[in-house]
Amino acid sequence: MTNPIPMAEIWRGPFLESVHRGHAVVCDERGEIVEAWGDPEAIVLPRSSAKMLQALPMVESGAADAAGLDAEQLALSCASHNGAAIHIDRVTEWLSALGFCDDDLRCGPQEPGDRAVLEALIRAHEAPCQYHNNCSGKHAGFLTLTKHLRAGPEYVDMDHPVQRAVLGAFEEVTGEESPGFGIDGCSAPNHAASLHGMARAMAFYAVAREGQGARENAAVRLREAMTAHPELVAGEGRACTRLMRAMGGKVAVKTGAEAYFVAILPEKRLGVALKIMDGGTRGAECAIASILVKLGVLDPAHPDAQRYINGPILNRRGLETGRIKPAATLC
Amino acid sequence: MTNPIPMAEIWRGPFLESVHRGHAVVCDERGEIVEAWGDPEAIVLPRSSAKMLQALPMVESGAADAAGLDAEQLALSCASHNGAAIHIDRVTEWLSALGFCDDDLRCGPQEPGDRAVLEALIRAHEAPCQYHNNCSGKHAGFLTLTKHLRAGPEYVDMDHPVQRAVLGAFEEVTGEESPGFGIDGCSAPNHAASLHGMARAMAFYAVAREGQGARENAAVRLREAMTAHPELVAGEGRACTRLMRAMGGKVAVKTGAEAYFVAILPEKRLGVALKIMDGGTRGAECAIASILVKLGVLDPAHPDAQRYINGPILNRRGLETGRIKPAATLC
Repeated sequence: MTNPIPMAEIWRGPFLESVHRGHAVVCDERGEIVEAWGDPEAIVLPRSSAKMLQALPMVESGAADAAGLDAEQLALSCASHNGAAIHIDRVTEWLSALGFCDDDLRCGPQEPGDRAVLEALIRAHEAPCQYHNNCSGKHAGFLTLTKHLRAGPEYVDMDHPVQRAVLGAFEEVTGEESPGFGIDGCSAPNHAASLHGMARAMAFYAVAREGQGARENAAVRLREAMTAHPELVAGEGRACTRLMRAMGGKVAVKTGAEAYFVAILPEKRLGVALKIMDGGTRGAECAIASILVKLGVLDPAHPDAQRYINGPILNRRGLETGRIKPAATLC
Repeated sequence: MTNPIPMAEIWRGPFLESVHRGHAVVCDERGEIVEAWGDPEAIVLPRSSAKMLQALPMVESGAADAAGLDAEQLALSCASHNGAAIHIDRVTEWLSALGFCDDDLRCGPQEPGDRAVLEALIRAHEAPCQYHNNCSGKHAGFLTLTKHLRAGPEYVDMDHPVQRAVLGAFEEVTGEESPGFGIDGCSAPNHAASLHGMARAMAFYAVAREGQGARENAAVRLREAMTAHPELVAGEGRACTRLMRAMGGKVAVKTGAEAYFVAILPEKRLGVALKIMDGGTRGAECAIASILVKLGVLDPAHPDAQRYINGPILNRRGLETGRIKPAATLC
């Protein structure tokens, strides 16, 4: 196995202070590797980068239509959101319309990243709920499919019909038998795949067309929901939201915990998957932005590209003390 | 230059999800390398791991005694504290006794890590002050020396007498000419050194004895202040505090931003310096704990050793989803 290669550098004054190493791969619509850095066959858990795969059975099965979901709810089903009002209000309404409440979620409570919501909770001496969890949209999707299948409440168990459907879709779209799974931060199974397999899956989302059957229809709807509602997929100030906006809705991107990142490029008919092997999110953000620039879909002069490929590091007094930059291999 | 080597592993289920790579070195009292991993001559900014060096001129010059500082204040001068009440109350009193106030600090405001203080600020609709900054004790030390030297207020400028004294002490104790500096998160200059130089400096602190002159006296007082007041050097729940307590005050350890860590081992007459090259704090905590176990000063069965060398990773529902472990090279 090839060692991970330098992808992002942290400079402070004249010193290279830290380096993020990883693997990345770009795949075409045939699932062939167009370009790779490090080891494209590295097997790693994609974490939340797999959310559009985990949402696929809900749409493909007709459960989403039966529940009357719109594009905003589909975007939330693929989201790692901030727990801002725009997210939690929609998830709460969605659960309520299905006849579910916070107690039916299995993601666990999480303090919201959104500062206004966090401060309101603290001032009210209230604890966060499960709908504040960044994965609550994905779980609302799981509950939507659970209801449609008339299945039991423990929808994160690996032998539950929802998770069996997710595994089936995951393996078919990555084109690989998954070697196993880990339990995610939100308690759902998270299936392992090679980076190549994940990039192949993203290329499938890139070239999916309406009218080619339920799976492609579902992939198109999820892809378009993500690019139409970047603020629901992450939140203000977050990389997924900034980068999708900077690319004018032409590319869908999704981060995952421990520095995974994927991208779906419909016009280029390409899929991308990368993992910074140390789990450093700032490195994954720099690497995906650099690759999107190389692929000609992100303007390197855009402020939300510059932020990740040549971003200043500010200290407590607001002084610039360093920069984050792509390593030579990604320039 | 040797590439950084794997030092800490993040496992999720059966998968190696992330890996932290770094360099580390153990030095004896002659400054000779006893053991090294990766490149002991790697030059990196030690960040807050250098605080006991930055405090040395204040004690050595007599400024600390002129200001009547006790061991608690000396510990705070070496601290990256949590901004808990035990820290900010002492720093505020110290500044006040010198005739200074928050405006005289140059570290910038920082939100406190201590949850009770943070929540109190939010409920009071108050912004954090400079004394909440994790470096406010170091800066109170700089102001103590500034007053003693009757120097000007801009004590973080590289040509200020305080910073010139710090550079002199830093180069003498590391045994190297520093190749330059970066500006730290708290706006103070942070001098670069090889890991070997930093470990040599820690060995100097380890073998320093009273009665051998002002510098050794100062080193003994700072070392003993750190081990006597581990709660002031970091704070409840933090690695420096936990590890120093677990070793019963026999070893001083100090973390620095971007995953630096140093240790002073008086009984073994050794110094340690390490840097996880991706800047991941959890990796540095695992690596320093593993090295302290290897050196025979940390009981691997102690809960606060286990936390870093075989610590469970819990998810939002409190389920164990993985473990952090040292890589084979540090086992």
